[in-house]
Amino acid sequence: MSEFEKITATEEFDILMMRYDSAIREVRTKLEILNNELSLTSVESPISSIESRRKKDRSIYEKLKRQGNEISLESIEENLNDVAGVRVICSFVDDIYNVARMLVRQDDVTLIQVKDYIKNPKANGYRSYHMIVEIPVFFSNEKKPMRVEVQIRTVAMNFWASLEHQMKYKHDVEKAEQIMKELKACADTIADTDMRMLKIRESISAK
Amino acid sequence: MSEFEKITATEEFDILMMRYDSAIREVRTKLEILNNELSLTSVESPISSIESRRKKDRSIYEKLKRQGNEISLESIEENLNDVAGVRVICSFVDDIYNVARMLVRQDDVTLIQVKDYIKNPKANGYRSYHMIVEIPVFFSNEKKPMRVEVQIRTVAMNFWASLEHQMKYKHDVEKAEQIMKELKACADTIADTDMRMLKIRESISAK
Amino acid sequence: MSEFEKITATEEFDILMMRYDSAIREVRTKLEILNNELSLTSVESPISSIESRRKKDRSIYEKLKRQGNEISLESIEENLNDVAGVRVICSFVDDIYNVARMLVRQDDVTLIQVKDYIKNPKANGYRSYHMIVEIPVFFSNEKKPMRVEVQIRTVAMNFWASLEHQMKYKHDVEKAEQIMKELKACADTIADTDMRMLKIRESISAK
Amino acid sequence: MSEFEKITATEEFDILMMRYDSAIREVRTKLEILNNELSLTSVESPISSIESRRKKDRSIYEKLKRQGNEISLESIEENLNDVAGVRVICSFVDDIYNVARMLVRQDDVTLIQVKDYIKNPKANGYRSYHMIVEIPVFFSNEKKPMRVEVQIRTVAMNFWASLEHQMKYKHDVEKAEQIMKELKACADTIADTDMRMLKIRESISAK
Repeated sequence: MSEFEKITATEEFDILMMRYDSAIREVRTKLEILNNELSLTSVESPISSIESRRKKDRSIYEKLKRQGNEISLESIEENLNDVAGVRVICSFVDDIYNVARMLVRQDDVTLIQVKDYIKNPKANGYRSYHMIVEIPVFFSNEKKPMRVEVQIRTVAMNFWASLEHQMKYKHDVEKAEQIMKELKACADTIADTDMRMLKIRESISAK
Repeated sequence: MSEFEKITATEEFDILMMRYDSAIREVRTKLEILNNELSLTSVESPISSIESRRKKDRSIYEKLKRQGNEISLESIEENLNDVAGVRVICSFVDDIYNVARMLVRQDDVTLIQVKDYIKNPKANGYRSYHMIVEIPVFFSNEKKPMRVEVQIRTVAMNFWASLEHQMKYKHDVEKAEQIMKELKACADTIADTDMRMLKIRESISAK
Repeated sequence: MSEFEKITATEEFDILMMRYDSAIREVRTKLEILNNELSLTSVESPISSIESRRKKDRSIYEKLKRQGNEISLESIEENLNDVAGVRVICSFVDDIYNVARMLVRQDDVTLIQVKDYIKNPKANGYRSYHMIVEIPVFFSNEKKPMRVEVQIRTVAMNFWASLEHQMKYKHDVEKAEQIMKELKACADTIADTDMRMLKIRESISAK
Repeated sequence: MSEFEKITATEEFDILMMRYDSAIREVRTKLEILNNELSLTSVESPISSIESRRKKDRSIYEKLKRQGNEISLESIEENLNDVAGVRVICSFVDDIYNVARMLVRQDDVTLIQVKDYIKNPKANGYRSYHMIVEIPVFFSNEKKPMRVEVQIRTVAMNFWASLEHQMKYKHDVEKAEQIMKELKACADTIADTDMRMLKIRESISAK
């Protein structure tokens, strides 16, 4: 049995994964409640859609390996912050910051880390707002704090990111460079258009 | 404008209703997490299905009226415990008590009231386990404790209850009495069969 | 590579499975449309819930093996009628026959086989109405007739069947016989109660 | 009773609306099956999301009124093509035409009308591909051809359209003109970026 199987083929591993799934549910519920509330009081809801995923077994193993960390359940909980991932897609840039603020303000949510790739885009043009939060989840016998990575971005940023993601599988290096340049240019145009659309919305809602 | 419209046609009423909807979501999430966890460790999941409903505007108004209470938003929150309703359908009788216990044990859930119509069936044969619980729900600006009625029953009890419910619309009194008697007899047989099925399950899982 | 992997680890196998999934969707849509229509015109909807599952890769392989049939994609389509399975749970016995009749009457549905285990229960007490139907499904390049097994039963029959299913994993033979006897007795009581409940419903709806 | 109520408060009206709901389900199922199939064979699925809505009672009435048509159930079926509406959101422009072609090619789908606002954008900048299709839907007693409007657009076009929609409620005319001009400019930039992103995708997938 390989090192990978020795950890992932255990009941304890399945239970830990179920816990991350539960944490995802809790965060989704919190976000859906906020979205429902705000849909009532504003013209449009701040959240366009919510996606979530739990990190694949294989990726968990490989990330620990890459980090040089021990391969164990404790090590997963200690060293990986993105086993549970929730992605929030907003229509407008200012909604991103509003949603983040309202989530973090809740007294059972602990903010562990923030990375604002909107104010500081990555070199390739990637824009998104990332937070690691910790929330308590109730199981049959105990209450466990669980970590969840929350990524918040606009529809346009998300579209860009999904195309950029496909580039990872592109091996023709010469052409790749050219494509990366064009992708970067598109990212900037998209960010610029997002700001113009936000200004239009502000003009519309202003009296 | 009627008294009914004066209260239900306000934005404040809509907001209160959205809050009850949110409380329903929270309770459902808690139950789904428990069910997922227990599905992992036992052969079958304790919960067969979960239904929920928010009380209709008209029924809220009529219940306050019938109780002789004031028609106001404060009065709704104070006097009605079943605006938010969650129904949990279990396969076996013992799962009912397990689910109830696990929910109430969570430290953000406050148990307000219990009515055990399984140990003490209603005169017509109705069986079900009822609880009023209070849970905190996070909104954009505040954390509010909200009340939810949780009804837990077996598949068979639920089937019986839905037929009995149809009787409410039966006006042919003479025949009604006869039907009620037959319904009562069926309720007893169903409760008896539920216990026999539970014993069979126990025999199956015993080593 | 084992014989099992040689067939299931191919893209063609994945495509065939996706086709069965699509057939399940089509049958579910047909049933949901009928249920919505009938909910409008009668007090209660005839269908209480719909479940569906596609046969596991391993079970497909083992069934072909057991039948002594060739292990190939053509053989799956030719010899297995239950790769796509839809289960319809009705509240009342007469709804079972109504739903079956309405589905089979549709001019793009071909009835391949019927097994009525309600009129002719299995020796162990199992009751359910089974049909194999064939429906056309539209893919990007072609229209394919696909087979689906549709099982229709009452809530009570379904509850019984799920408990009986657990018995398959019971190996203590002596006790097993005793349990089987008790299960059979419960199945008869449940069938009897189903008929009594149906009569009560008829009395309620009669003027 | 008003003319509006005389038609919408009837059981026949409810039945007709249920039929349009059923037609929406059928079209959604067809699209989901295509999307599932294509997700298997290409890197990304062509459809990013599907939304649907049935036209509000009030809007149905007002549209007939505005058209100068009779207010009757027959008139709805004859004169309105958009009571049932399905919106398909694609990531890339070419997916729009692929999805449209695959839907229309199915032999139970009849194409009634096409309006290509991508090739010919509206004056305000609106871009989207619109089709009216007719599909047969099976009810308990009959098979009825029903009309559905299918709108297909990119994520970016959809975002633009939702903002433009809010402008409808803007009454400050002077400022409105300015906003419309800016919206038109954004629409053009978005369409341009959509084409650049499509070219990047083509470069990525080219060998």
